[in-house]
Amino acid sequence: MPLPVGDHIRYGGDYNPEQWPVEVWDEDHAAFDLAHVTTLTVGVFAWAHTEPREGRYDFSRLDAIVERAHREGRDVVLATPSGAMPPWLARAYPDACRVDFEGRRHVHGQRHNHCPSSPDFRRLSVAMADALAQRYGDHPAVVAWHVGNEYGGACYCDLCAAGFRDWLRARYGTLERLNDAWTTLFWSHVYGDWEEVVPPSMLSEHWRGPNHTAFQGITLDYRRYMSDRLREGFVAERAAIRAHSSLPATTNLMGFYQPVDYHRWADDLDFVSWDNYPPLPDDPLRTAARMAATHAAMRGLKDGQPFWVMEQTPSITASRDVNPVKRPGVLGLWTWQSVAHGADATLYFQMRQSKGACEKYHGALIDHSGRTDTRVFREAADLGAALARTGPALLGARTPARVALLLDWDSWWAVEMTDGYNRHVSYLQTLLQYHRALWAANAEVDVVPVTADLAAYDVVVAPVLHLLKGDVAARLTAHVERGGTLVTTFYGGRVDEDDNAYLGVPPLDPLLGTRVEETDSGLPGAANPVTLVLDDEATTHDATLVFELLVPEAGTEVIGTYGADFYAGRPAVTRSRRGDGAAWHVATGLDDAGVGRVLRHVLTGYGLVGPHADDEGVEVTRRVAPDGATFTFVLHHGASPVTVTSQVAGEDLLTGRTVEVGDALVLEAAEVLVLRG
Amino acid sequence: MPLPVGDHIRYGGDYNPEQWPVEVWDEDHAAFDLAHVTTLTVGVFAWAHTEPREGRYDFSRLDAIVERAHREGRDVVLATPSGAMPPWLARAYPDACRVDFEGRRHVHGQRHNHCPSSPDFRRLSVAMADALAQRYGDHPAVVAWHVGNEYGGACYCDLCAAGFRDWLRARYGTLERLNDAWTTLFWSHVYGDWEEVVPPSMLSEHWRGPNHTAFQGITLDYRRYMSDRLREGFVAERAAIRAHSSLPATTNLMGFYQPVDYHRWADDLDFVSWDNYPPLPDDPLRTAARMAATHAAMRGLKDGQPFWVMEQTPSITASRDVNPVKRPGVLGLWTWQSVAHGADATLYFQMRQSKGACEKYHGALIDHSGRTDTRVFREAADLGAALARTGPALLGARTPARVALLLDWDSWWAVEMTDGYNRHVSYLQTLLQYHRALWAANAEVDVVPVTADLAAYDVVVAPVLHLLKGDVAARLTAHVERGGTLVTTFYGGRVDEDDNAYLGVPPLDPLLGTRVEETDSGLPGAANPVTLVLDDEATTHDATLVFELLVPEAGTEVIGTYGADFYAGRPAVTRSRRGDGAAWHVATGLDDAGVGRVLRHVLTGYGLVGPHADDEGVEVTRRVAPDGATFTFVLHHGASPVTVTSQVAGEDLLTGRTVEVGDALVLEAAEVLVLRG
Amino acid sequence: MPLPVGDHIRYGGDYNPEQWPVEVWDEDHAAFDLAHVTTLTVGVFAWAHTEPREGRYDFSRLDAIVERAHREGRDVVLATPSGAMPPWLARAYPDACRVDFEGRRHVHGQRHNHCPSSPDFRRLSVAMADALAQRYGDHPAVVAWHVGNEYGGACYCDLCAAGFRDWLRARYGTLERLNDAWTTLFWSHVYGDWEEVVPPSMLSEHWRGPNHTAFQGITLDYRRYMSDRLREGFVAERAAIRAHSSLPATTNLMGFYQPVDYHRWADDLDFVSWDNYPPLPDDPLRTAARMAATHAAMRGLKDGQPFWVMEQTPSITASRDVNPVKRPGVLGLWTWQSVAHGADATLYFQMRQSKGACEKYHGALIDHSGRTDTRVFREAADLGAALARTGPALLGARTPARVALLLDWDSWWAVEMTDGYNRHVSYLQTLLQYHRALWAANAEVDVVPVTADLAAYDVVVAPVLHLLKGDVAARLTAHVERGGTLVTTFYGGRVDEDDNAYLGVPPLDPLLGTRVEETDSGLPGAANPVTLVLDDEATTHDATLVFELLVPEAGTEVIGTYGADFYAGRPAVTRSRRGDGAAWHVATGLDDAGVGRVLRHVLTGYGLVGPHADDEGVEVTRRVAPDGATFTFVLHHGASPVTVTSQVAGEDLLTGRTVEVGDALVLEAAEVLVLRG
Repeated sequence: MPLPVGDHIRYGGDYNPEQWPVEVWDEDHAAFDLAHVTTLTVGVFAWAHTEPREGRYDFSRLDAIVERAHREGRDVVLATPSGAMPPWLARAYPDACRVDFEGRRHVHGQRHNHCPSSPDFRRLSVAMADALAQRYGDHPAVVAWHVGNEYGGACYCDLCAAGFRDWLRARYGTLERLNDAWTTLFWSHVYGDWEEVVPPSMLSEHWRGPNHTAFQGITLDYRRYMSDRLREGFVAERAAIRAHSSLPATTNLMGFYQPVDYHRWADDLDFVSWDNYPPLPDDPLRTAARMAATHAAMRGLKDGQPFWVMEQTPSITASRDVNPVKRPGVLGLWTWQSVAHGADATLYFQMRQSKGACEKYHGALIDHSGRTDTRVFREAADLGAALARTGPALLGARTPARVALLLDWDSWWAVEMTDGYNRHVSYLQTLLQYHRALWAANAEVDVVPVTADLAAYDVVVAPVLHLLKGDVAARLTAHVERGGTLVTTFYGGRVDEDDNAYLGVPPLDPLLGTRVEETDSGLPGAANPVTLVLDDEATTHDATLVFELLVPEAGTEVIGTYGADFYAGRPAVTRSRRGDGAAWHVATGLDDAGVGRVLRHVLTGYGLVGPHADDEGVEVTRRVAPDGATFTFVLHHGASPVTVTSQVAGEDLLTGRTVEVGDALVLEAAEVLVLRG
Repeated sequence: MPLPVGDHIRYGGDYNPEQWPVEVWDEDHAAFDLAHVTTLTVGVFAWAHTEPREGRYDFSRLDAIVERAHREGRDVVLATPSGAMPPWLARAYPDACRVDFEGRRHVHGQRHNHCPSSPDFRRLSVAMADALAQRYGDHPAVVAWHVGNEYGGACYCDLCAAGFRDWLRARYGTLERLNDAWTTLFWSHVYGDWEEVVPPSMLSEHWRGPNHTAFQGITLDYRRYMSDRLREGFVAERAAIRAHSSLPATTNLMGFYQPVDYHRWADDLDFVSWDNYPPLPDDPLRTAARMAATHAAMRGLKDGQPFWVMEQTPSITASRDVNPVKRPGVLGLWTWQSVAHGADATLYFQMRQSKGACEKYHGALIDHSGRTDTRVFREAADLGAALARTGPALLGARTPARVALLLDWDSWWAVEMTDGYNRHVSYLQTLLQYHRALWAANAEVDVVPVTADLAAYDVVVAPVLHLLKGDVAARLTAHVERGGTLVTTFYGGRVDEDDNAYLGVPPLDPLLGTRVEETDSGLPGAANPVTLVLDDEATTHDATLVFELLVPEAGTEVIGTYGADFYAGRPAVTRSRRGDGAAWHVATGLDDAGVGRVLRHVLTGYGLVGPHADDEGVEVTRRVAPDGATFTFVLHHGASPVTVTSQVAGEDLLTGRTVEVGDALVLEAAEVLVLRG
Repeated sequence: MPLPVGDHIRYGGDYNPEQWPVEVWDEDHAAFDLAHVTTLTVGVFAWAHTEPREGRYDFSRLDAIVERAHREGRDVVLATPSGAMPPWLARAYPDACRVDFEGRRHVHGQRHNHCPSSPDFRRLSVAMADALAQRYGDHPAVVAWHVGNEYGGACYCDLCAAGFRDWLRARYGTLERLNDAWTTLFWSHVYGDWEEVVPPSMLSEHWRGPNHTAFQGITLDYRRYMSDRLREGFVAERAAIRAHSSLPATTNLMGFYQPVDYHRWADDLDFVSWDNYPPLPDDPLRTAARMAATHAAMRGLKDGQPFWVMEQTPSITASRDVNPVKRPGVLGLWTWQSVAHGADATLYFQMRQSKGACEKYHGALIDHSGRTDTRVFREAADLGAALARTGPALLGARTPARVALLLDWDSWWAVEMTDGYNRHVSYLQTLLQYHRALWAANAEVDVVPVTADLAAYDVVVAPVLHLLKGDVAARLTAHVERGGTLVTTFYGGRVDEDDNAYLGVPPLDPLLGTRVEETDSGLPGAANPVTLVLDDEATTHDATLVFELLVPEAGTEVIGTYGADFYAGRPAVTRSRRGDGAAWHVATGLDDAGVGRVLRHVLTGYGLVGPHADDEGVEVTRRVAPDGATFTFVLHHGASPVTVTSQVAGEDLLTGRTVEVGDALVLEAAEVLVLRG
């Protein structure tokens, strides 16, 4: 199914005017005009007023909102309200509320809290989706469906337990197979009856928290199951909508959100949308790189199809301990970055601030004062104008990446719930470290699942790919054999899909040309110096946390060597060649400079280092439109102006000026160029 | 109702001799004579032996204690024992035990743990109060009633939930009004039936803890309700006592105790008493200032009426992680400080150490050894003698303050449960910072509720007055218009009584002559330099945590300016004049020196800087007796002797010597003067 | 009952081959031959396959394992599987699962989780022990019984509550006595009916956690009770075994494991075995000293009888946050250290790594690769050969210590659950600090309960002996009077067996010749300099955490003096002589050097400083065989080779070379000598 149709990058966001008097709506809409807002997301969390009592629907407010949008020429993304249940539902159906990881049944409160196994919640949420689709399914203002909101968390109730057992029956067929998968002969856990299986929680297999489990197998499976279980709710609502509407449906994902495996969801989303709330910036470049990685990962869910940014804040978030405002220009810079990486819509949470409750200080285009002369509104309005100016040219354009970074929820889960070797290893931080090295080189990168077709890529980077699923080992081998390069790291390829260790020779070892004899660990901060010799130059880098002691095969090249401890002189980074291809293994937590050296060397071999790779803070990336036009985005993330000698060329969609290779190019802080050429 | 009658500052404290053999009582009373103890608090936690089985009263031990006190000429403060229920009560009536914030029903243990909604607990505690009042209501030794003990905490049981709904019905009348107050259209929380309301807890609206709630409105109301609910228990016991006794009743408050709004209790207390256990001293002057603020806040509960210190420790507390002994002289210094700020009784916990359980190492006049030749006992005895020497002169004397510091539990709660801007902002620490600046200037300060009559004050300081109740904005405006000064800070005047943001122009903005366009936040430690220009002198100060970006009206003076970040040069401190009055706004977390400069300037304008304001560690404050006599207290909190040129005069009640203005005055560490003059 | 018979130090460990295919068993046994493995621990956690359904036993796998061991000439330590219940048991008998400290009933999961009061668990575990003993009780391969596994934790269910009340009835006889012991008149806790007593948990007496209780008495008793209750399960299984087997039974203890008082278990163990997993080494010498202390404490459980090391890891543990590999040589060094301190068997967990679940990365002789050319296997094989070479000479040899270090679980518990003085005081760390000073002097030390016969010792060191049980004060006095030396510390002798403070003169004060007037406390890091004058030399040391202010009697020598604060010049270390004996009191948290000076002085007085006491890292200790032969162990814990002038002599069992006093002795890192001489 194609993305919602439009004529330029969509702009707008969440709008919940039921929270304030109708008189204020005029003020809102006047501001929308000023800001070139084209698209409003409405109906998120509207359950309480669209169905004030069970079965009694009241769409009067929603009608008014949608009609007004339509009248003023704006499109509507219509949400089902299942992200937050109304009080009457929780009271009538206590099973609709979750039982948490500590075993406590919750009552009404907060949001994102329904039990995905509750038949009553399912029935009522589907009925609501059906009613909405019946009413608005062919409304001319509506362009897409937004089902629920930020699905996440987990439930541990008896209904979920029963569902888990069904899911396990379907996955394993027999208890023998399940017992084998979970290694239940360890600690006397052999199940003799499906009913003996209980969810892994603080009352059963866990201690300290969700990442400390006695049996990784059951915990992994519960996460897979819960990802599926939550998705079933989405699918059920989508099915109800489809009966009345042919418009595409999505839900707003959350980027690198560990609890839910979005790769298990991808097929069921008509298009991808996500909410971009990066963690508090310690360093602006790290934040920029992280957002680039996340955009690529979201784009990678559906084979590179453009996506939507469904939410970002115009100014502050309210939920962090410290909530700084976005600095001048940052709103535009980040918005254009999302477009540069594949966004066809850039929407915000939210259009106007709510007057009360926990998000009342969350940023909005229009704040409590109602003024449009604020810095935030002015920046947003300028940005809306610029997006409007670009017209339809960018819509549907794709990223021509030849580097794949493998993202795998199973490995993420497995690594972080493993007892030993080192609890301080973060799957995501390591993935982001490798991504950052690619990003700093302005290499174009897809972030894809291990099931992705690798044929399009020269370089495949697979950090901390602990768990090997399906035929991935064979496909990675084939990738190298046809001349590609693979880069793996410590912890890679240790366990199978059930998180059981490979006995004998692990499947990637022959390709890597080495084996791991021991794995040493260090406290955070304790470093072993590793010397890399590449291109006849030796550099020394800190290595931390994990130190695999490798035994390379004859012919395997030693690129990096430990400098200290009883394994001084032993290999820390190896390369095994197969014809034109090569498989690298980085056996330790190398520092950023070390990872950068390795990856820059690999990229150089394929001519994949991008323009301005040596101008720190200058991000360059491309999109290629369906008509073949190429757009080069230049984004300056630095805090001060820089002057660079241009390595790119084209006409800037934003200013109309033309840039040639070799020009002295002055980039102001937060400046963006979109060069067609 | 007047305070209990006496002939000098009362001295003594908690005495629980039921814990040791009667033979030891002789030793105790001999020690009391040595220490000039006049008053014993008895019966706190006595339920188990005064009613060993339901309905079977046994006052034999209590009789013996009270009779012995009477025989030896000591007064008794008689406590009802409801601060700790006996085991039989918890077993017979499980509802008497609380359900905690995590939803867990407790069983018997600890103390301060009764459910305030339990009808059985209410019945039994009132019956006990009734029985005590019948028996001792006209006993000549008894001078006051001490109801319960350190009321606090909260219960979340079904009975409390039902009570909450009743309380809400009374407050709001209709669900429409409640839904509006709580902004329930946000996140689909619209209540269609009172029964749908459940207490805000970890099972409903909260995450992380009591300060993280999805709906501030319900959480604020639950705290107000619980403050009232606990008070109902006090009031019920007091009513039972009144049927038999005309003596005044109090309960021991805990100073700046966040969970209970003591302003909601003040009218029901016949007189105020409180327990002075300051946090571990990081710095002795901060501790001294904090105690001064707390005394003023407790005095402010009942319009300046003198109060009692019901408890302080003679040496160590036992409940902290680290429990240092009070340094030599500190016991006397702190006791006199309480008198200086309005105490008419200075009582201790406790007279003799218990032999077991969790307070066995808590300090006492008489420790486990039973000796009276210990440092602690000697200091206490010297102090008792000194208090006795002062006679009745100080009783009933009042503090003639012209500075009001506004204390508001609603703002305290609201600020610390707000999502955004900065969770590191502490209401209390900010209030104490502003108080410290006033205290360092030896300005006399009342700490009063926002409902207080402001007519008596020249200066009103309102730090972090986030939430505006009733007509406070109008009264603050009137205060300035009649020539007074108001000092507000960041976060001030943002929300109404329901914690909903003001839309449009917030009510204090016209008075302040400025508006807040944005609010930036910083991590703890990250500072922006703010330059203050006052009296033609510029000084630069660190500002942290919160940075409001102000847009002043024409005519509003900019007193302080940010020095860094994109808002460098914009105002950080403003002053808006109205005739002789002025309204200041300090828009950021200014450091101590900066706050000190602002407040010293304001005080100077009214001649309110006190004597010895430039002698660090020398506190000077006054009380004016009903007969017009003025007593000037000079307290030296420094660790070393100092010599100052006296700015005060009079005859010292403690030593008899006379001090003149201009005298060279040598103050030893911990020295105290009480000058009549 | 004697230890299991053997012909040299046993070597081997846990072997769970049910987790992998029978084909792999050949590989395992070939490796065992290479490594000189003599003994296999089998059947731990085997319940799920030995009783797959209730009452249906299936010993086929166990038979195969035991038979194969027998065929190949290896001995078997046969375990009962009660350390982990199978899923069917938890499902059929929910009472078999524990209720935790938070009041939550658990379901199946993890291990070490049975309720010790569950009649069903008891019945089924005893039936299993009976069945095993019937089947294998006279099997020629079986040499000992291993009952359960690492008993620990606690249950708070209603059955345990009822059992607690029975235990209390037996201990106290009357409620009057219980109320007195627990000081229940404090806070109205007087029990009028046994049924009113509920376990101390987060729902009753506790806050913050297990060490924060309102009533120390009930919490102490619950720990004593739970130690006994867990032991009952062990005893019941052992009794079932004895009906069929005369072989000795043990269970694997955990060294300094706070929750269970092993002194209460000692009589019921036929011999002691324990699992040696020291905490992450901050410093190798501290770790070595700690292991020496633990060996001595385990040896001290049964009056110096040799013990077994039942488990240690050949390489890494998996359960820590960071799990470094054992450095080269450390496996041998630590194994020989255990022998040096009394081990007659040195077994490992485990022979081969499990393929899945939470211990899959735990070290093993044979790892997932199945290889025997790994460093770990080679070191283990070399060690096996060395142990085999020593033959039977060492079996049954004892340690001739004349220094006793008193270890007391009651004091450990009491000190760490006390409110006041200083929560940062660690009983165990203080005990280990005093032990470390003795160990550094190569003094031979027994770590014994306070009930031990002290006649054999010259020096008794009793750090933090807070609680005095039985006649210990009298026996310590007698020890000094007959010429011995006693060293006590701050907190010593404050409370009786019920944790009630001594009133008047505490029983050790007359012996110490001093009394404690006050106890001051400091934050971690805040130090008071203490000057020690010993042997005419003055040295100054940091003292931290606790500062007792002593009032010595006439004649008591002041050895150490505080240098700061208001008690500068007052005594910090005292010595009271009685004839040739002396009682020392160290009244503050003296630093390592200070403790070292005091103890070295004391040891010197009795000629108890061992050889090589001044060669840091060189541990020397002895065992004396039943035939009178003396073996001197020299262990070099330093990381680099050292050359020392030998102070020991004999023929090295490991290399055959002879060492004479005065020889230049080169010790490599991790080198071990076992000198017969």
